[in-house]
Amino acid sequence: MTASSRDRLEQALTRIADPAGEGARACLTVYTDEARKAADAADTRIKSGSSRGPLDGAVVTVKDLFDVKGEVTRAGSRVLAARGKPADADAVVVQRLREAGAVIVAKTNMTEFAYSGLGANPHFGTPGNPADRKRVPGGSSSGAAVAAADGIGEIAIGTDTGGSTRIPAAFCGITGFKPTVKRVPRAGAFPLSFTLDSIGPIARSVADCANADAVLAGDTPSPLAPPPLKDVRAGFVQGYPIEGLDDIVGKAYPQALAKLASSWKSGKDVTLKALDIMHTANERGGVAPPEAYAIHRALLAEAGEGVDPNVRMRLLRSEKVAAADYILALRDRERGIAEMDAVFDQVDVLVMPTVQIVAPTMDEISTPESFNKRNVQALMNTVIWNFFDTCAISLPIRLGNALPCGLMLVGRHGDDRKLLAIAAAVEKQLGT
Amino acid sequence: MTASSRDRLEQALTRIADPAGEGARACLTVYTDEARKAADAADTRIKSGSSRGPLDGAVVTVKDLFDVKGEVTRAGSRVLAARGKPADADAVVVQRLREAGAVIVAKTNMTEFAYSGLGANPHFGTPGNPADRKRVPGGSSSGAAVAAADGIGEIAIGTDTGGSTRIPAAFCGITGFKPTVKRVPRAGAFPLSFTLDSIGPIARSVADCANADAVLAGDTPSPLAPPPLKDVRAGFVQGYPIEGLDDIVGKAYPQALAKLASSWKSGKDVTLKALDIMHTANERGGVAPPEAYAIHRALLAEAGEGVDPNVRMRLLRSEKVAAADYILALRDRERGIAEMDAVFDQVDVLVMPTVQIVAPTMDEISTPESFNKRNVQALMNTVIWNFFDTCAISLPIRLGNALPCGLMLVGRHGDDRKLLAIAAAVEKQLGT
Repeated sequence: MTASSRDRLEQALTRIADPAGEGARACLTVYTDEARKAADAADTRIKSGSSRGPLDGAVVTVKDLFDVKGEVTRAGSRVLAARGKPADADAVVVQRLREAGAVIVAKTNMTEFAYSGLGANPHFGTPGNPADRKRVPGGSSSGAAVAAADGIGEIAIGTDTGGSTRIPAAFCGITGFKPTVKRVPRAGAFPLSFTLDSIGPIARSVADCANADAVLAGDTPSPLAPPPLKDVRAGFVQGYPIEGLDDIVGKAYPQALAKLASSWKSGKDVTLKALDIMHTANERGGVAPPEAYAIHRALLAEAGEGVDPNVRMRLLRSEKVAAADYILALRDRERGIAEMDAVFDQVDVLVMPTVQIVAPTMDEISTPESFNKRNVQALMNTVIWNFFDTCAISLPIRLGNALPCGLMLVGRHGDDRKLLAIAAAVEKQLGT
Repeated sequence: MTASSRDRLEQALTRIADPAGEGARACLTVYTDEARKAADAADTRIKSGSSRGPLDGAVVTVKDLFDVKGEVTRAGSRVLAARGKPADADAVVVQRLREAGAVIVAKTNMTEFAYSGLGANPHFGTPGNPADRKRVPGGSSSGAAVAAADGIGEIAIGTDTGGSTRIPAAFCGITGFKPTVKRVPRAGAFPLSFTLDSIGPIARSVADCANADAVLAGDTPSPLAPPPLKDVRAGFVQGYPIEGLDDIVGKAYPQALAKLASSWKSGKDVTLKALDIMHTANERGGVAPPEAYAIHRALLAEAGEGVDPNVRMRLLRSEKVAAADYILALRDRERGIAEMDAVFDQVDVLVMPTVQIVAPTMDEISTPESFNKRNVQALMNTVIWNFFDTCAISLPIRLGNALPCGLMLVGRHGDDRKLLAIAAAVEKQLGT
């Protein structure tokens, strides 16, 4: 960061305002005046040698579901925008970002209520994918990924309940991190799933993600210490997560593995038996879907016609889930978490493609059926790690000039910093 | 405790074996040989000056739902007895009791699956109430209370999901403690409610309860330091918890309050607005009932005809509860816990009758309708504190030679030792 915070902020504001860019669709609220004050204050601190750390003066966006004091939290919804009450306080993560000196430039667009993986939003417009504006950006943290990829700020704070930081990172060719749920406090974040919601950053490097994650987690940021990959045991996930890959992902993923092949201490194919536990839980109706329905039931009854039909339909699918099935799904999950944890006795990191497909075009998802099909594909691999509450990160991989894809690295529940350090080593080896 | 552990154990074994007593119905498994070995070992330690503390050599019973390695855990159920697998390990609380030197003499009878407050068990017989053998003992920790009241051991370990240590303590004229849920680990305890189950002791004094609780919680037992009551602010609960009292409780409770009236630092009537939150949650179907149904659904489908009809009927009532209602009830409860916690900024202890009625006769509960009516009455006051996850203790109070009643003292969530110390001071003042 050679330019001053204020200079970088002005660049971000210019990009947001550029009618040829995606700023209007990526950023739903822009904090011009407050951000300028914050940037100037950061520059003053940095000049005087009293920097608050790596996020001091960093230009940051936050997803539209984080409370900012005095504002109605919309969560990408016109209905919530019209009916909500102004927040009493900043979300905890917003407080922590401000305390770390971050310059919050905008609130970013998202799938309504964060409830789909493609990033389409019929109310505020879908921000175009940086690699091809006719394609979706991925979601639900759609505006976050587009903002970070387009240089509207250096770091975007999103949430991830089923893949919402990792999918848009993969589709947009940048880096997205999903921490272990307990790592980052959720007070002041509009919920989708009380059990699965996690809060994480999207950025252009693992180091930026790690610094942001440290601040979100209430730690003092410190440089990552990437291990030599010759000390890292990799497990390559087998089975359905690598069986439905489209042409581009099907070539980009093995190419990335080949770049890393001789680097690992060991690499072995891993079949995850615990996936059966997840499938049983999902046959019962799952964990996040009935929670999402519970959260939105009253709103759907009162103003459902104002909700994105794709989101509404998905929510309503959980109307009839029985309490007993949900309770047993939660128990399945506890058992699954323990079983998956044991996998990490054998490997330091699991490796798989983040998403099985590249970003679909907006035309491709124009019917409920095609939307649903693509949405299921988008979420297929990422949701696994929300169920098992590990940490996971998507690194960009790319086959020449083809559309971007993601390489997902998964670490043990609670070992977030270790995963980030390994990811930094992999990032370097990949040369991204 | 002047007699040796072995002498006290032999007395307990004699009482269990006495055909004129309730031993056969209170104790479902008797550990004669192991208990003798444990008692002798304790006596040797104590003689040599290396006692493990106040539970060393104490004669203890455990409720039928705690795992004992190598045995099938019955939870008062013939169906579970026939279909269960032997436990791999002792329950954590059983381990802790053994490590503290406790002599486990028996597993005690209970309401099947711990799912009612009266203590009736059609499979193994209902242990008669010590004050009147034609009356129920209260439940679900029925055998625990009868054993402790009848001198079959000094301490009985029970569980409390809706009142299961406090109701039988009140009905049987002894002391029963329900800790804050998180205080005592539940691994190896057959569940009724994943959210509400707590593990606590029934005994003949607050001091015995406190020593047992310390061991269950993994603390080192130390003597309580009862505060002067002139330092204690009491809140007398108003509203329905004192409005449905039967003749005996309706006189015994004010008499007990009168004995304490001039002792408190302050005493004020308290109307608990947070009860409305509980009622809303219960209108949604509540928390424990759908959890109990989920736990037993498969068993009911496969072998429901072998289950106590009163228990089966109660379980099946939650068949249709929707996941969304349960999820919202859990959220109601979180809000309620916070609101109730604030009440304890104003008072140190809340006071109310443990149960609104004295123990019904067994005849009185012989029809499903009369059973249900009495069961609802039995649980009315105790369930409040499971919902709000406070700690609570029932002290015996008695109107002359009338049937026993309970005075319930309630302490703040997590302030278990403080409540026990206050209870010791109240016990002394009541002269029980």
